[in-house]
Amino acid sequence: MKKMLLASTSTIYGQKYLDYLQDEIKNLFSKSKNILFIPFARPSGITHLEYTEKVKKIFDKLNLSVLDYQNDEDFKENINKCDGLFVGGGNTFLLLNKLYEHQLIPILSSKIIKGTPYFGTSAGTNICGTSIGTTNDMPIIHVKNFKALQMIPFNINPHYLDPIKGHEHMGESRETRIKEFHKINDQTVIGLREGSFLNIIGNDIILKGSKPAAIFKKGKEKFEIDNGFNLKNLI
Amino acid sequence: MKKMLLASTSTIYGQKYLDYLQDEIKNLFSKSKNILFIPFARPSGITHLEYTEKVKKIFDKLNLSVLDYQNDEDFKENINKCDGLFVGGGNTFLLLNKLYEHQLIPILSSKIIKGTPYFGTSAGTNICGTSIGTTNDMPIIHVKNFKALQMIPFNINPHYLDPIKGHEHMGESRETRIKEFHKINDQTVIGLREGSFLNIIGNDIILKGSKPAAIFKKGKEKFEIDNGFNLKNLI
Repeated sequence: MKKMLLASTSTIYGQKYLDYLQDEIKNLFSKSKNILFIPFARPSGITHLEYTEKVKKIFDKLNLSVLDYQNDEDFKENINKCDGLFVGGGNTFLLLNKLYEHQLIPILSSKIIKGTPYFGTSAGTNICGTSIGTTNDMPIIHVKNFKALQMIPFNINPHYLDPIKGHEHMGESRETRIKEFHKINDQTVIGLREGSFLNIIGNDIILKGSKPAAIFKKGKEKFEIDNGFNLKNLI
Repeated sequence: MKKMLLASTSTIYGQKYLDYLQDEIKNLFSKSKNILFIPFARPSGITHLEYTEKVKKIFDKLNLSVLDYQNDEDFKENINKCDGLFVGGGNTFLLLNKLYEHQLIPILSSKIIKGTPYFGTSAGTNICGTSIGTTNDMPIIHVKNFKALQMIPFNINPHYLDPIKGHEHMGESRETRIKEFHKINDQTVIGLREGSFLNIIGNDIILKGSKPAAIFKKGKEKFEIDNGFNLKNLI
């Protein structure tokens, strides 16, 4: 049975990294002894090692044990060994590219489906949807396929942003971009605002956190769902 | 000899479509009798036909003649026939995907190098750089290669945006994204703000318009260049 925590962002304004999710993280990983952190998204281009050390430090404080990182080749072994998974944010293209490169998609999917607790933030959340077609990230590296892990039957748009009043920038709004997405794709898109997250247990996908989420169904007007809503009702 | 007008945006705040570029457009196309409009970027998902009609209307007012659009297959013929090119904005992935699908890249490049005047806005500007790796657009369709037309030896970031003071959104700033790009790519990136454009004649690439441009060279601090600066000096 799937157990997943998918957050829009790792950090909310004015707080420290992962602070607002501490209770959720402790709860998700309450039985995990060997958590594998996957650092491939490299926020601000930090190295895999630096990123892993940053996460280790926070998880130590929560009395959670993250597996040591040596090099990328260890990942296949660590994925088999681990009983918890955390995929951090950064660049979604970099992340998905590495997963394909190391042929980690089938192993990851199988572990999650069998019940290994999974925690994702931002890019780590994005890759759990149908495709990465609604990421906000720059395509800094080519990826052979935009198909993602498909752990939920939607696409996620993390860091979902409402138009800023009085802002004179003419680049497309997030809503316009998602509407463009629906001109050639069918899957429903969840605009997950910062501070919100999805709590997945089996088939239940519950919206939690501080904000409603914006739902985009192909051919329909955008609508909002509140904290506590079960997204399996959208299918 | 290349003659190109590459604009960050088609429309500036409070004005109508292409208004601020009228003089530049008339100047660029002063000898063009058959301008081919390439509508593949489909802003807000409008059809190729709708987009072409929109442009035709504006160009008519400027006494400029845009070739009729019938269907996509006409493009190869029209590209051979045309003596002016305009590639409009929208989604860069959609645009580049169609160019690859119809094998238009070599023909387009060759026409531009031989001196057919080229006008691009936003996505139409983006595809003239080294790659589309610094687009802001959503990857709503997979593209087999991110390599672009390479008419200038840089990448462009159109609609370049400075951080908004007091904004509490935690998604990456444009500058952070471009720095991430440079962790795995080498080419210089031109952050072209709305209202600015590049005027290219042969090897000269002159910044024009209302704003300075932000220059990102790999491994260096961002710096600004002013109106009138020749970007060939950055190479």
